[in-house]
Amino acid sequence: MSGDATPVLFGGLYARGEVAAAVSDRAWLQAMLDVEAAMGGRRVRAEQLDLEQLGRDAADHASPVVPLAKLFAETHAGATSQDVIDTAMMLVAKRALVPLLADADAAAGAAGLLARRHRDLPVLGITLLQPALPTSLGMRAAGWMTAIDEAAAALRAAPLAVQMGGPVGKRDPAMAAQVARELGLEQPLLPWHTDRVRPARLACALGVLCGALSKPARDVTIAPGLREGDPDPAHPRGGSSAMPHKRNPVAAVSVLACTRRTPGLVATMLASMEQELERAAGAWQAEWGTITELLRLTGSAAAWARDLLEHLELDGAAIQAGAGPNPDLGAAAALVDHALEERAR
Amino acid sequence: MSGDATPVLFGGLYARGEVAAAVSDRAWLQAMLDVEAAMGGRRVRAEQLDLEQLGRDAADHASPVVPLAKLFAETHAGATSQDVIDTAMMLVAKRALVPLLADADAAAGAAGLLARRHRDLPVLGITLLQPALPTSLGMRAAGWMTAIDEAAAALRAAPLAVQMGGPVGKRDPAMAAQVARELGLEQPLLPWHTDRVRPARLACALGVLCGALSKPARDVTIAPGLREGDPDPAHPRGGSSAMPHKRNPVAAVSVLACTRRTPGLVATMLASMEQELERAAGAWQAEWGTITELLRLTGSAAAWARDLLEHLELDGAAIQAGAGPNPDLGAAAALVDHALEERAR
Amino acid sequence: MSGDATPVLFGGLYARGEVAAAVSDRAWLQAMLDVEAAMGGRRVRAEQLDLEQLGRDAADHASPVVPLAKLFAETHAGATSQDVIDTAMMLVAKRALVPLLADADAAAGAAGLLARRHRDLPVLGITLLQPALPTSLGMRAAGWMTAIDEAAAALRAAPLAVQMGGPVGKRDPAMAAQVARELGLEQPLLPWHTDRVRPARLACALGVLCGALSKPARDVTIAPGLREGDPDPAHPRGGSSAMPHKRNPVAAVSVLACTRRTPGLVATMLASMEQELERAAGAWQAEWGTITELLRLTGSAAAWARDLLEHLELDGAAIQAGAGPNPDLGAAAALVDHALEERAR
Amino acid sequence: MSGDATPVLFGGLYARGEVAAAVSDRAWLQAMLDVEAAMGGRRVRAEQLDLEQLGRDAADHASPVVPLAKLFAETHAGATSQDVIDTAMMLVAKRALVPLLADADAAAGAAGLLARRHRDLPVLGITLLQPALPTSLGMRAAGWMTAIDEAAAALRAAPLAVQMGGPVGKRDPAMAAQVARELGLEQPLLPWHTDRVRPARLACALGVLCGALSKPARDVTIAPGLREGDPDPAHPRGGSSAMPHKRNPVAAVSVLACTRRTPGLVATMLASMEQELERAAGAWQAEWGTITELLRLTGSAAAWARDLLEHLELDGAAIQAGAGPNPDLGAAAALVDHALEERAR
Repeated sequence: MSGDATPVLFGGLYARGEVAAAVSDRAWLQAMLDVEAAMGGRRVRAEQLDLEQLGRDAADHASPVVPLAKLFAETHAGATSQDVIDTAMMLVAKRALVPLLADADAAAGAAGLLARRHRDLPVLGITLLQPALPTSLGMRAAGWMTAIDEAAAALRAAPLAVQMGGPVGKRDPAMAAQVARELGLEQPLLPWHTDRVRPARLACALGVLCGALSKPARDVTIAPGLREGDPDPAHPRGGSSAMPHKRNPVAAVSVLACTRRTPGLVATMLASMEQELERAAGAWQAEWGTITELLRLTGSAAAWARDLLEHLELDGAAIQAGAGPNPDLGAAAALVDHALEERAR
Repeated sequence: MSGDATPVLFGGLYARGEVAAAVSDRAWLQAMLDVEAAMGGRRVRAEQLDLEQLGRDAADHASPVVPLAKLFAETHAGATSQDVIDTAMMLVAKRALVPLLADADAAAGAAGLLARRHRDLPVLGITLLQPALPTSLGMRAAGWMTAIDEAAAALRAAPLAVQMGGPVGKRDPAMAAQVARELGLEQPLLPWHTDRVRPARLACALGVLCGALSKPARDVTIAPGLREGDPDPAHPRGGSSAMPHKRNPVAAVSVLACTRRTPGLVATMLASMEQELERAAGAWQAEWGTITELLRLTGSAAAWARDLLEHLELDGAAIQAGAGPNPDLGAAAALVDHALEERAR
Repeated sequence: MSGDATPVLFGGLYARGEVAAAVSDRAWLQAMLDVEAAMGGRRVRAEQLDLEQLGRDAADHASPVVPLAKLFAETHAGATSQDVIDTAMMLVAKRALVPLLADADAAAGAAGLLARRHRDLPVLGITLLQPALPTSLGMRAAGWMTAIDEAAAALRAAPLAVQMGGPVGKRDPAMAAQVARELGLEQPLLPWHTDRVRPARLACALGVLCGALSKPARDVTIAPGLREGDPDPAHPRGGSSAMPHKRNPVAAVSVLACTRRTPGLVATMLASMEQELERAAGAWQAEWGTITELLRLTGSAAAWARDLLEHLELDGAAIQAGAGPNPDLGAAAALVDHALEERAR
Repeated sequence: MSGDATPVLFGGLYARGEVAAAVSDRAWLQAMLDVEAAMGGRRVRAEQLDLEQLGRDAADHASPVVPLAKLFAETHAGATSQDVIDTAMMLVAKRALVPLLADADAAAGAAGLLARRHRDLPVLGITLLQPALPTSLGMRAAGWMTAIDEAAAALRAAPLAVQMGGPVGKRDPAMAAQVARELGLEQPLLPWHTDRVRPARLACALGVLCGALSKPARDVTIAPGLREGDPDPAHPRGGSSAMPHKRNPVAAVSVLACTRRTPGLVATMLASMEQELERAAGAWQAEWGTITELLRLTGSAAAWARDLLEHLELDGAAIQAGAGPNPDLGAAAALVDHALEERAR
């Protein structure tokens, strides 16, 4: 066993961008150490500890905090493993959301640029996968943009709060206030040791963002006239091992490979909300790996979607030809302008 | 085939309360008719139409609106099936949320009453299903209350908007404004024909509320000293067919029977966000039954949870004895007071 | 509330074919009555009972059998609600699988016919949704066939057994043997009151079949040169409400609308396997509606897939042109022949 | 990034036993290399290659095989990335199932030993989490055993076959025969590049086994008189960081932490069956990480369940007292004997 659970061989697909590092085993450990420090403990860097030994010791407690707590014997007093893990989970999420939302915003911005640029480019609309009536490519891209923007806004609003409940969830809130201040997290009304609305809402917001990211990816794989560009022309991608003439939609496929894995993970988080009394036996412990995967896959999807939309190429003549002569796109243009104005605010 | 898809034999479990009627086939049809009326069509009541014939005709179009549209030939012009179905879905949801949120609020209120009443009643906290340290029953009930309140607030904030995109999603927004005004729904920035953030967020909020409702139900099934009361003493419930002495936790079991069915449904809605181009072939059509089930099951869970919490009985002496002598519950009492004050605002 | 939970307005999509009737509320009630009869009770027809009253009474017990058991006071002795419901669930499944598998077999047969007929018709293979190398249409159709056949065989092998455990799962197996004989179900090694391998395997097999059925439906929506035929030319379908020139892939979309709803339902059944001690509080009761939906949706998908494949039309010239001149399809033809021979055994 | 995606900090929970190593990035790479060798390429050990570089290169192709294929330029001819990945996936599964099934069998065997030993020990049966009627502890343990055995048998029967379809799925089956022979996998009727019945059935069988393993774990957390033993008395586990007197059910909680994560993963695999034409864009690529997680979590659950059941302790006097005086357990004993005899065959 080596030092990190980040996917490697499939990491190009599932762990693109900066979120993977922000949710790595080491990042989790650092977050736990930061929580201990915020409670008044000394500052320890994750690199100073033996991650693998901690992992082995964790098996004796169904928790990685019990071995850790020994290092902070005095300041940990009054806290429980769950305080550290739950608060660390929120801190990991807060940190991972920075690059994640940056990539999502960039993806939406790139879609917005396409919408502006191709505001008046007619394209044959396709409904139920059959040719339908003309619309504009700008209209299609504006739809990509608003969906990602809406989903990102909801994710940004997901409540991330400290957990300082003590052994059975009734700890004095003074420590919660201190840790919240220290770590830049919210202070909750009550300890939420078995009130899992926060992790569940976070998971849902990630799942919804994945859905929004999947849509342009799916469109690019099937829409005539759209193709992926090469971010680095000196280093073309998408070649096929068996068919040299072929150019594969690598970014779109990678977005979809990530986003298709998330609905089941959200379901796991929701099913985990049924937690017994003052600490759940199983449902709580199932959250850690699940939220980690969710953050990593959503982060990877956002990074790939940004790549896809920032380098999208199109065959304007073919697209326009498909739409037939002189379609009336006035309403579409007005809608696109309206959506772009709203975004600019 | 008869007139309605509401469960009957299992309806006592899965379709309690008023939400079931609000999401019935007839309610969906009425919502579609109301959308047509809001677009300027004549007012038609669902009872005037042959629901079963419509259902049969719908099979020729993978949509129940195509046969309906013939009735509104003039005013339907410019709209598409999806406009009617999506807007009707939002209208059905808006109407169903009224009794659903009333039951959820009543459940939270009942939990709040328990929290106030048993603010100082010691109870042995149970973590990982093992006896731990004392807390108060009020603290436990306050946790139930805040979780339901948080989840209900998020559901109340779910964005419900009209859809008026026309055949390929670029319709002039004037009609959207009119229909939004008429039906009390939001007007979206753009048509959202293949931007499914709204239905997905609604689904997620329902799933999260189910999770919050499941928690007190699970607790009641396992916590010593808690038992279900009889809403109607003249009509006792919970008897067993095989063991006359036994008293089953009917309300708690029914809450759980509903809530355990919802995470998978949320996953279906999230997976359905990957919608192709200007109208999806399959993913969109999968939403209708799924959101209906989600609303019905969440509504039933809320009605059962309200019933459970409004009539919860407890054996105070046994509960207090379990907690040991004179535990310090000062912090717990302050937290409970704080949560109750916040709710009262 | 009326007499049946079968979808009506959306029934054309979600409840096509004969499975819907076989899993209706009335069919469930009849199965329960048949179980009581097999235990030695008198024969009662579902029509003789008031389904809605039973549904209402069921709410007092979180079980529809408790009110029913009163009708069979003597012969029901020794049994428990769970015996009746679990055995009825298996009986409902057994009955529903008859039309379900007939439709699946017909769908596979129709795919086989296409494979034979178009064994040598070149078609441009499409990988990652990009043009790739030639294959034959027969090869593609043979793949549809074998997948459906494999999945149907696995479903046929799903173990359907009686449950006769008595109140806590330790009933003398003599009654199990009698009921198994009477109803044509297997006799299990032990009562399986909280061993849910059987319902879970049934659910999984249904989910896998849905996956196999979804594949040709997806292909038909996107493959150039394939289009849906009209089962009844006097009654054309697939017209659009907004675009008269358009022909929608109604059967394919309907297959996908059903199949996309099932993975989440399978997950619910799997999550329900964690059942407490001698009877679960919630997980068991969540199964009833879930397995009913799964059977109905899989049945509908099979009926629609059969319709799709039996009437598939194709534009042979266009298909052949796409594949380029004289591709070598020898290996493909041999594989198709081989698969067809295996099926004929 | 380091060399392996196996969880570390949470690895004690999620990656116990030998399955984790068998599904690691390195094991996947080795399996791919073994497939290349079976096709006639030279033998290469995974340690000879730079896993991280391969992972980075994979991002240019949405596939880790394209960079790999360059190493096997001659012998890879005629194959496609999918041939290597799909066959490697089956080989990884085949290898991982060895320790996985060994642990599952040992868990069932330990349950069988408990059934035999406590065949006549009365215990109060608990239904709907309420005290019900007496049964025997042996009966309960026999139920654990048969469920695990049934699920393990179904998993053992999951069809694992080579994939040798070439670029569009029509490759001459001679190579498939050779590779199947070489690697000990089945030769399929046809290439199954977009017929995903095999991976889906494997996933389902893993999910069902998790369900069977979760049941005794849940029971141990709630049944009076059952408690976890210490595999190594010199190294006691289950201590709490905040409550020194407390003994936590570490193994049971760990089983549940794993098993609760799998239903959503199975749903992902089922949803991935809808694969387009000759190679899917997204659905196929989503399988790799999902099946890896499923194998690892099921393996960990099996290792933990074995640990739990092999060291289960009980308070016989307390258990017997709960059941009341002289219950008739004759039928239970006969059933237990019957189940044990069947297992011994």
